[in-house]
Amino acid sequence: MDERLAKQLDFALTIDKEKNILRQTHLSGHGRRENDAEHAWHMAVMAYLLREYSNEPVDISRVMIMCLIHDIVEIEAGDTYAYDEAGHSSKKDREDAAKEKIFSLLPEDQKTEMIALFDEFEEGKTAEAKFAKSMDNMQPLILNNSNGGSDWRDHRNTYAQVFGRHSGTRAGSETLFEYTEQVIKRHMAEGNIIVSE
Amino acid sequence: MDERLAKQLDFALTIDKEKNILRQTHLSGHGRRENDAEHAWHMAVMAYLLREYSNEPVDISRVMIMCLIHDIVEIEAGDTYAYDEAGHSSKKDREDAAKEKIFSLLPEDQKTEMIALFDEFEEGKTAEAKFAKSMDNMQPLILNNSNGGSDWRDHRNTYAQVFGRHSGTRAGSETLFEYTEQVIKRHMAEGNIIVSE
Repeated sequence: MDERLAKQLDFALTIDKEKNILRQTHLSGHGRRENDAEHAWHMAVMAYLLREYSNEPVDISRVMIMCLIHDIVEIEAGDTYAYDEAGHSSKKDREDAAKEKIFSLLPEDQKTEMIALFDEFEEGKTAEAKFAKSMDNMQPLILNNSNGGSDWRDHRNTYAQVFGRHSGTRAGSETLFEYTEQVIKRHMAEGNIIVSE
Repeated sequence: MDERLAKQLDFALTIDKEKNILRQTHLSGHGRRENDAEHAWHMAVMAYLLREYSNEPVDISRVMIMCLIHDIVEIEAGDTYAYDEAGHSSKKDREDAAKEKIFSLLPEDQKTEMIALFDEFEEGKTAEAKFAKSMDNMQPLILNNSNGGSDWRDHRNTYAQVFGRHSGTRAGSETLFEYTEQVIKRHMAEGNIIVSE
């Protein structure tokens, strides 16, 4: 077999492991914990369907591929819960090493392309990255909301934590941020998110 | 909340159920059975990375969204194993009813758009549909190949069954079909696929 195709299929097989990386979010209907591949699939479909709410026009194929690959490094680096402060301080180093290792399986040109997409998402400066990041927030928000805010309640999350994370949605979509604020307020009123002073 | 956004988010929440629809394919490393959302995610990433092998130029965003949604009707209709002949005879009716029910959650324009994409994939006539269908074959092929052909062996699949399914890959990609033929031949030689007369 052609060496280029062999490398691409090796990468494709390796990322199968993303299906075993569990997140803190639970599936709707108080289901089991979600994994990274499911989260990425859900984000990409949502990005396509909600693209009209992006603050700026976006190239939807770039948004979708960013959604699909943004967590691939966790195959090596593990998932860091959005509200785990200790984990976040070492996250960047772990993910940089993982990024180099995983994308090096690809042919050089695709390694460069995928790392650029991955970094673009992380930096969150382009219209596509901002909207993809909104989906990274919105996707667990709708699941958690459907489960009565149980993920927040179980982790005893405060308003400062939850708002801090979800405030990033505003850069991608004012409309979806407005919806997010309503959801957060309701869950504070219901006691699922701790009201911090 | 705006009625249009409410409908879109209702659809987004409903398709969460796709993560509970199990397929016959097992994850690499002789893992658990794969679900439809994981399969769709994997197909879409593979489509992006392998797009150079499409026989015809494709609009990759259309290929990706087709990959991502092609199994959504199984939330209502269930998964039909590729080699289940009885199941396949009733598949079309079950899936048509499911398609109408699920996509009706969306605003009318998006219902029309998504049904058109779903039908385009099913019909397999456009360049995008043909390449997406190649991915629908290639994705389980690489997993099953990595597991020593155990899914074929466990189901006592014959060459006629396996070749019949995978022959469709040729319409999307001659190169990937050539690879597929090599894999099938090897698994016949190893006794994982039954040599039919």
